[in-house]
Amino acid sequence: MATIPNAAFSIALDCQLDNVPGSLGRLCVAIGEAGGNIGALDGFDVRGPVLRRSLVVQCRDEEHQRVVVDAVHSLDGVTLLDWWDRTFRMHEGGKVEVITTTPVNDRDDLSMAYTPGVARVCTAIENDPSLSYKYTIRKNTVAIVSNGTAVLGLGDIGPEGAMPVMEGKALLFKEFGGVDGFPVCINARTADEVVEFVERIAPTFGGINLEDIKAPECFEIEERLRASLDIPVFHDDQHGTAVVTLAALWNSLKITGKKMEDLSIVIAGMGAAGVAIGKILLNAGVGEIIGCDRIGAVYSGRSEMNSAKEWFANNTNQSRKMGSIADVMKGTDVFIGVSGPALITAAEVRSMAANPLVFAMANPEPEIRPEQCDGLAAVMATGRSDYPNQINNVLAFPGIFRGALDANATDITENMKLAAAIAIAESVTDAQLSPEFVVPSVFDKTIVEKVAPAVAAAAVKDGVIRKA
Amino acid sequence: MATIPNAAFSIALDCQLDNVPGSLGRLCVAIGEAGGNIGALDGFDVRGPVLRRSLVVQCRDEEHQRVVVDAVHSLDGVTLLDWWDRTFRMHEGGKVEVITTTPVNDRDDLSMAYTPGVARVCTAIENDPSLSYKYTIRKNTVAIVSNGTAVLGLGDIGPEGAMPVMEGKALLFKEFGGVDGFPVCINARTADEVVEFVERIAPTFGGINLEDIKAPECFEIEERLRASLDIPVFHDDQHGTAVVTLAALWNSLKITGKKMEDLSIVIAGMGAAGVAIGKILLNAGVGEIIGCDRIGAVYSGRSEMNSAKEWFANNTNQSRKMGSIADVMKGTDVFIGVSGPALITAAEVRSMAANPLVFAMANPEPEIRPEQCDGLAAVMATGRSDYPNQINNVLAFPGIFRGALDANATDITENMKLAAAIAIAESVTDAQLSPEFVVPSVFDKTIVEKVAPAVAAAAVKDGVIRKA
Repeated sequence: MATIPNAAFSIALDCQLDNVPGSLGRLCVAIGEAGGNIGALDGFDVRGPVLRRSLVVQCRDEEHQRVVVDAVHSLDGVTLLDWWDRTFRMHEGGKVEVITTTPVNDRDDLSMAYTPGVARVCTAIENDPSLSYKYTIRKNTVAIVSNGTAVLGLGDIGPEGAMPVMEGKALLFKEFGGVDGFPVCINARTADEVVEFVERIAPTFGGINLEDIKAPECFEIEERLRASLDIPVFHDDQHGTAVVTLAALWNSLKITGKKMEDLSIVIAGMGAAGVAIGKILLNAGVGEIIGCDRIGAVYSGRSEMNSAKEWFANNTNQSRKMGSIADVMKGTDVFIGVSGPALITAAEVRSMAANPLVFAMANPEPEIRPEQCDGLAAVMATGRSDYPNQINNVLAFPGIFRGALDANATDITENMKLAAAIAIAESVTDAQLSPEFVVPSVFDKTIVEKVAPAVAAAAVKDGVIRKA
Repeated sequence: MATIPNAAFSIALDCQLDNVPGSLGRLCVAIGEAGGNIGALDGFDVRGPVLRRSLVVQCRDEEHQRVVVDAVHSLDGVTLLDWWDRTFRMHEGGKVEVITTTPVNDRDDLSMAYTPGVARVCTAIENDPSLSYKYTIRKNTVAIVSNGTAVLGLGDIGPEGAMPVMEGKALLFKEFGGVDGFPVCINARTADEVVEFVERIAPTFGGINLEDIKAPECFEIEERLRASLDIPVFHDDQHGTAVVTLAALWNSLKITGKKMEDLSIVIAGMGAAGVAIGKILLNAGVGEIIGCDRIGAVYSGRSEMNSAKEWFANNTNQSRKMGSIADVMKGTDVFIGVSGPALITAAEVRSMAANPLVFAMANPEPEIRPEQCDGLAAVMATGRSDYPNQINNVLAFPGIFRGALDANATDITENMKLAAAIAIAESVTDAQLSPEFVVPSVFDKTIVEKVAPAVAAAAVKDGVIRKA
């Protein structure tokens, strides 16, 4: 990822230039020669013999930022007044804010929002706790809970380190789904600790989004919380990814003409996402699914398993295929990777059935680079934004929770996830559909308008609705 | 409280009137005859033969609301299109909202706020967790934690029922202190359960405001959390009230000319507030303090105590006065009530020393009504907004947390509370000071500007500052 200059490593430069022709040109040349990409240029502000300019420059990494800054520093006729790392600056003070929805300008306001009027609302809720979904933030607020044990590709970095990701998730919840997400990062390691914590905090929220909790604990945590709580509980790393993967698969089959029940699919990676993808594909009627972990194919009776893999082995791979990922990929129709970088080569893709689908979703470095599959894969998808077909769960979770909250759902069922996948798939029109466009853009804000009502309708159909 | 019409029971009426002279007058007469107070009248919107009017009417209680509504219904030439309870309407969907502080309009935004850029911030925090106070919402966000066991005067109403109060507190934090408060209502009964919960959630927040947790558990909970956490922990029911009480006492002494060390003070109520008031008064150098609970005076060696009362008995009432509240009030200078309604009579106030101070702060019904103390008390204060000298902790907590966060404080020390009390007291000028004005108005938004820097300076002096 860090080989080309990008926004994640961009810097802002605040420069003072001599007000003579050529100053800006020399500045741009210097930045270009240092390898920086100028992404924005503004703030033309003439002050007599000098003028001010603001620039945004994309860099490769932090060392490269210094190289660019030094290049600007060394220019005659240009004074670097200030510069900063845009990513860190953006995170200062956090990325969400708690604001008030009602004013308190006088005693009347205060006597309704606080004592004594608030006591009327408290008493009403005490007498009928379901009113908390009407008269408190539960109506629209979801906790984004993480213990920081499996954060992005960074691993077990702890709750403090996980906060910027959960705040980012809250940002996406609000921007795309209108859901108030609040980040909750916790000191809790075991499944028991996380479950107990979430059960304690549940009265505050209308839903629980579990995030970046390592496998296999994440499976037990979600299962126990779904059973004990009467609000929706959803582990996005599992189901968000699974829903979007299924949507991409459906649309890909429209291109290759194959049928779900005839497919043979290999899933590389038996963590949260891999297991959940397997489950949703089973529900969608896929013929054969073979999971692989570091050791190779997962099959019934194998050693070095955990409870999630045991379940997986007992419900997939009926012919008990064994061997390495290369062994089991031969003749299959679909490769789905949620594992790590450069796991497979073009040789493995060539060994697959005709018109194979390759969803290499490891981030930031996929299991195989799209360039290596050119001319081999009928459809190629990744988790990255700089290639076509980005499998990104921001297509799913905002709409799923929007729909669940709108319907007063008490759970998020398999049918609700399937409904979300269908809505995402169907949002790609026949005219748009192509090998390079099997899922919509993550910035298509109409997606949530399609996903939410579909999810809400499925909740009603499944009868997982709170009585008002 | 419910004997006079008030905003807490106000309703909004949306009426259509015949557009003929006298319609509005008849409507107003009908409402007035039904006992309603018209608080606002607007929305003059003529539509040919009819016009629309919106009214706000204060009522005494919910039954009275129906009486007023029926009176309007029965009028000729007036159609009641809609009406609603303003307090409940204000609470719909809750009183706080989570918003984003940065846009996500394109891939560059997303790559800084979320993956891959966010990983840079996560890693920086993992390597130096103190950076979480700079790059996450910890910088300005306080948890308002309650288990709902002692909510207002309502008692143990549970976490769901407590939420509107904690949301109201969040409202006050933001409006008065610019602090992002987030309500956290939890299923947790014992001190162990609450302590464990707060320790787990601590990485998310820059401070913990404990609220409406019953005594004596609240004392142990605060003490243990202050010891185990490196962020400020503050039980507002204790210390907020204590700080404002001390401020009121200081200013009252300017009027009566008495000295702190010569005072004899009776405190009625040995819950969270009473014990904390005793502690802060001890630190302020008060000569004699006698606590009373339902049984009577608290003294060393008495039976029916808890650990907080034991501490109180061992550190106050050196002469071991015994007996009823009436017994121990004789000859004392100050009565401070944080107990319940109508505990004392004018006879007890008459038995006090000359120029007694009476702070009867039970809510909504004080220990003695101000009318009963007319001509007896040198200064009279209550917890109510409809009498002079309201002892309201909204004067304290927004500024205390604003100061603690600004200073990167790791604790809220006794000196920080004293500094807050002094700042509140000194905000009343000599010209303003009178028996009816010993504390500033709760709507004086300049108070926090005085309290916060004083608290921050005390934190620096006490050395309870996080190293940056």
